[in-house]
Amino acid sequence: MTQQPSAPKREPLTYRQAGVDYGRIDPLKIRAQQAAAATAGNLARLGLAEVGASRGESAYVVDCGEFYLASITECLGTKALVADQMRAVTGRTYYDRIAQDTLAMAINDIITVGATPVSVHAYWATGGSDWFDDEARARALIDGWKAACDACGVAWGGGETPALAGVVAPGRIDLAASCVGLVRPKSRLTLGEKLAAGDVIVLLESNGIHANGVTLARRLAERIAGGFGAEMEGGQLYGEALLAPTVLYSPVTEALAAAGILPHYCANVTGHGWRKLMRHPASFSYRIHTLPPVPPVLRFIEKHAAIDAREAYGNLNMGAGFALYLAAAEAARALEIAASVGVRGWIAGTVEAGDKRVLIEPLGLTFAADDLHVRA
Amino acid sequence: MTQQPSAPKREPLTYRQAGVDYGRIDPLKIRAQQAAAATAGNLARLGLAEVGASRGESAYVVDCGEFYLASITECLGTKALVADQMRAVTGRTYYDRIAQDTLAMAINDIITVGATPVSVHAYWATGGSDWFDDEARARALIDGWKAACDACGVAWGGGETPALAGVVAPGRIDLAASCVGLVRPKSRLTLGEKLAAGDVIVLLESNGIHANGVTLARRLAERIAGGFGAEMEGGQLYGEALLAPTVLYSPVTEALAAAGILPHYCANVTGHGWRKLMRHPASFSYRIHTLPPVPPVLRFIEKHAAIDAREAYGNLNMGAGFALYLAAAEAARALEIAASVGVRGWIAGTVEAGDKRVLIEPLGLTFAADDLHVRA
Repeated sequence: MTQQPSAPKREPLTYRQAGVDYGRIDPLKIRAQQAAAATAGNLARLGLAEVGASRGESAYVVDCGEFYLASITECLGTKALVADQMRAVTGRTYYDRIAQDTLAMAINDIITVGATPVSVHAYWATGGSDWFDDEARARALIDGWKAACDACGVAWGGGETPALAGVVAPGRIDLAASCVGLVRPKSRLTLGEKLAAGDVIVLLESNGIHANGVTLARRLAERIAGGFGAEMEGGQLYGEALLAPTVLYSPVTEALAAAGILPHYCANVTGHGWRKLMRHPASFSYRIHTLPPVPPVLRFIEKHAAIDAREAYGNLNMGAGFALYLAAAEAARALEIAASVGVRGWIAGTVEAGDKRVLIEPLGLTFAADDLHVRA
Repeated sequence: MTQQPSAPKREPLTYRQAGVDYGRIDPLKIRAQQAAAATAGNLARLGLAEVGASRGESAYVVDCGEFYLASITECLGTKALVADQMRAVTGRTYYDRIAQDTLAMAINDIITVGATPVSVHAYWATGGSDWFDDEARARALIDGWKAACDACGVAWGGGETPALAGVVAPGRIDLAASCVGLVRPKSRLTLGEKLAAGDVIVLLESNGIHANGVTLARRLAERIAGGFGAEMEGGQLYGEALLAPTVLYSPVTEALAAAGILPHYCANVTGHGWRKLMRHPASFSYRIHTLPPVPPVLRFIEKHAAIDAREAYGNLNMGAGFALYLAAAEAARALEIAASVGVRGWIAGTVEAGDKRVLIEPLGLTFAADDLHVRA
């Protein structure tokens, strides 16, 4: 960890400047989505059918008659690079947290469709067999993975640990998780048919950056004195705060289901930040009146990257890691249930008829439909 | 593509010398397998139970009451690096073939447990957004992926296309696939309970290296004149022969099931080559009396890497991409059915009571149980 000079740079560090350019990825993504959609008919030979509404949602859903089958594959992104750099600062490996982050990417997505996660597979591709020579790090990855599985009540079914010199960068690991879930009974399916004006938006707490916006956070470390070792207000190190492991939300959705509360819709707040609140395909306006507290590390990024609220809320979770859209009468009880499994939430806004947009009233911010491109 | 000097090197190029050291990976793998196995109890909350015999097999199987649920995540490995280098030689991208290879890794594994593959997810992690700027290559990847899905009758449910600068090497792509399948009716489960002395071993043809042994094949390209552009006997280029896309075997297993033929066991011949023929956990001897023809590219590797038959058959598929273990009375009919979907096969040997080993009689070769370490 080299100490970075503190020379103030005046231009803000935006998400696009940080090297993530969604514009360049999207044409392929759309072509791939169309090709994928064209394979739906293959299921007929099995007497199965896809649930078309799941295309473009966070998990794929197949109607198997007595139940729905949901599946997802998600990657961690670049957060492990933060762990690798922080090790030089504190000596900790942090890969127990990284493991939880990776699983959270898949599990927090598959639950949005109403699925109970059943089993996961690990995908741990390294730049060479020598990655495993670091036993403390390898043990942390394994132990953290198991702990996250236990926290979500899923079975760890297996996985791949390929050594891919020439594909994965030397000394690095490419982490991903796949998850299979069941929607049983079928009434638990939450693909959005039930979403209606008057529904309440409950935001569940995040505890930091989770695993989205990490590229921006890494670039920021290059610009500030101390880098990842910089002390934030209160004394916590910037890099350590970044490595708070993503909250796992499946205990909440499972507890809600057990209590008979079925969300009308769910959104995992990941890339695109609060723009994800309008993920639902229909035209609704999402009016936010209450903001959850912003985790200090996100405030730190906002301040030192000199980004405005629009850039911050449009790309980072800003304290809201997951959104539940609920019948108004069930919102208060849902908060109690979430709290009972250790996750705070807030009744943060309402769904209204109107143009597709997110209105964040306390900040005077509006994201229009055009600001989000996640569908073909 | 630089022309390599043709200086003969006398020492053979073994798998371990080629940079793949299973010895270094296995301790982590075993610890991970044990941690994974310890999560099985999590399924009880859902009224589900894992099928313990699937631990250590090629796909994970959960008993869901009326059906079994199977899942798998598999990676391509380093074969895309061959495509990248061959592009400089011929101008073709080959990513349509690479796509099929990647899907084959998952699909040829999940069918070993008797599952019908239902849906797949793509994992395409690049070293940067600019990977997608090459439209011909991106289109080939997408089109090949869709074609392979159609060939196997599976739905392409979605996937991830992350840009992971710093994790994936610049200009490269890390390709993997996850697959979900159903074992329905449950009698189709082939985890090996039925395997018995007297069963016949049917080997299904490969068409080249498939996607295992590629590191060795790449190292060899560095040692021979012309590299990947070297002409083999008959004029085909070495690199192009390597890029023959892995045979998809699910049309065979599905056609067998439709005809009422349920294998007693299946083995996908991947890493560890023919040592995989003794993958079954019990002690049996596998006596091979008939060898399938060896694809020219594998003969080329055997010759120019100066490896002996033991090294070749112990690491490469040598013409046998998939093994079916069948009741003797059903073997001939199974060959006809495989041929009817375009896959040749041979009645190649028998299962016998005895020490766990593979005896390849025409070569005078024996692999003992100690030669294979795939289980915790």
